[in-house]
Amino acid sequence: KQVNNLIGYPEGCGGTFPTGGSMSNFMSLVMARDKVNLAIKEQGISQKIVAYTSEEAHYSISKNASFTGLGKANVRKIKSDGYGKINISEFEKQVQLDLANGFTPFYLNATAGTTVMCAFDDVAGLAPICSKYNIWLHLDGAFGGSVIFSDRYKYLVDGINLTNSFCFNAHKTLGAPLSTSVLVVKDKHDLYNSFNNSASYLYQTHDEDFNLGQTSFECGRRNNALKLWTMWKAIGTNGIADIVEQEFKLADAARDYVKNNADYTLYSFEESLSICFNYKDFDPEDLCTKLYESNTLMVGFGHFKNKRFVRLVVVNCENSLDDLMQFFTVLEEFTQQNKHLIKKI
Amino acid sequence: KQVNNLIGYPEGCGGTFPTGGSMSNFMSLVMARDKVNLAIKEQGISQKIVAYTSEEAHYSISKNASFTGLGKANVRKIKSDGYGKINISEFEKQVQLDLANGFTPFYLNATAGTTVMCAFDDVAGLAPICSKYNIWLHLDGAFGGSVIFSDRYKYLVDGINLTNSFCFNAHKTLGAPLSTSVLVVKDKHDLYNSFNNSASYLYQTHDEDFNLGQTSFECGRRNNALKLWTMWKAIGTNGIADIVEQEFKLADAARDYVKNNADYTLYSFEESLSICFNYKDFDPEDLCTKLYESNTLMVGFGHFKNKRFVRLVVVNCENSLDDLMQFFTVLEEFTQQNKHLIKKI
Repeated sequence: KQVNNLIGYPEGCGGTFPTGGSMSNFMSLVMARDKVNLAIKEQGISQKIVAYTSEEAHYSISKNASFTGLGKANVRKIKSDGYGKINISEFEKQVQLDLANGFTPFYLNATAGTTVMCAFDDVAGLAPICSKYNIWLHLDGAFGGSVIFSDRYKYLVDGINLTNSFCFNAHKTLGAPLSTSVLVVKDKHDLYNSFNNSASYLYQTHDEDFNLGQTSFECGRRNNALKLWTMWKAIGTNGIADIVEQEFKLADAARDYVKNNADYTLYSFEESLSICFNYKDFDPEDLCTKLYESNTLMVGFGHFKNKRFVRLVVVNCENSLDDLMQFFTVLEEFTQQNKHLIKKI
Repeated sequence: KQVNNLIGYPEGCGGTFPTGGSMSNFMSLVMARDKVNLAIKEQGISQKIVAYTSEEAHYSISKNASFTGLGKANVRKIKSDGYGKINISEFEKQVQLDLANGFTPFYLNATAGTTVMCAFDDVAGLAPICSKYNIWLHLDGAFGGSVIFSDRYKYLVDGINLTNSFCFNAHKTLGAPLSTSVLVVKDKHDLYNSFNNSASYLYQTHDEDFNLGQTSFECGRRNNALKLWTMWKAIGTNGIADIVEQEFKLADAARDYVKNNADYTLYSFEESLSICFNYKDFDPEDLCTKLYESNTLMVGFGHFKNKRFVRLVVVNCENSLDDLMQFFTVLEEFTQQNKHLIKKI
């Protein structure tokens, strides 16, 4: 697999094309759970096992904990540092506490591009702790994982070769059609172990390379792989790298604009595709709602550590720098014309 | 929902468009499990709960039992009768046995169109038992559930209004593009209860009718609903009924041909879209493999109660009776020309 080459997984790795990021994360959780104890597939969960994720991670992690029978209460949400990354020492402290209380730690969901701030967890820093305590390390790159294609930005996921599984969504940053998610696993046996199933009417040839159903949640599936394959064939790794780099260029420009204009306050950080800001003293929620309802702009809001803000996510590589500046111009004109209608913070 | 009207669910029902039949069955199992005890979402499964299905049911049921933390060992596979339908008295006996042993029965997966024989479980006969023991009744109509559109064939799912949930795949019998699955639930609160999740960055309006993510496994999704909607708008309920009825007409013709020709042995039954047969004394597995490898015909094999056979599934309504007869002609010519190469039973 070409993706495995990019991230440096060894021989014996495997992968599949789940229906999306939630499903990729779900599958990684099931694999990690089944690796704790093979009997879980047959008997259900009877041990006290706990999973870890960042308080900034995607909401699917706790949803998946409920679906897999783990229970949301057995997911520890580790505090993030000031940049939105998992606080590494907090993580290790929690693991030690759980061990002392008779729990078995088994899974960490790290994130490449958190939902709100687009922060990249420090994989290289987390991996040794996972390895020490025998914890499956999954990297959820649904949002930012596509940086693996860019020589310039792949340092953001340094240590990715030390993970047990990794996923990214080509339908997000790369602009592929929905849904084009990729899940890769360091040891393909883990994929077979959790998702294989015998069904004599289905698998009428016996070569596992042609029986992709044995590694997937679904039975009948769309040919999602084709969407990424055609794109990759058409523009090459360099072409995909260009997409990623163009998006970071737009993000840098947006951030610079916000930083250099006293009417704006910036909340997000460098090396991120989310630009989080407030404009003057307008309430971000009300501002976004009014922009939307008047068919002016469609932009979301978010919050991080008690700050609320407008959240501009730069994932359309077909936008130009002019388009981006136009966004700010329209925003400023709209607030100028409607300043009495928009709530203040 | 129009589907709910067809099957007679009351006010307050709900539905969604999962990615396929496996996912629909998975979602019904999660809802049933969470209904046993709301604490399962938070704490995981701690009670001894058991699910039921037919030995003829789709393989996803036991796969899903492993994914949900129930464990495959907690799925009882009820023996089918001579026609491939769940043996109702065996089902009730097993429920009573489990109760006596301290298990809580909570879910029955019945099938409208079993995978091999396309048998329709007797929903009207099963429903009172489920109701008596407080068991969630799910009807997996991935294969045959589309009969709800046909006044002539919907008697095959009599009692469907008594189920808790029902699914069918428009991408199977109706010929819609992959994947067009429909899951309907008698009480939409069950759907919200299991699949809702708060994520302030996602749900920026608060009207639940527009927040379909709250009732689905997935976050980003393809607009699968549109495929069925456009088809339904274009040809109407009667048009869809015609598709279903054409397929039964083809099945009847194929079955008649097999019955009236002494070289063939029939294994399947009336009211089914699967025609299972052997031709002369040719080994069905070897025959299908040789037909496939020589690019002659693509047809599968199956087995039921120790019988092995060729399994012709009639789900393409664009086939004509001539096409169907051509299938048998080609099969007969091929075996005539290759009779020494094909294994005998």
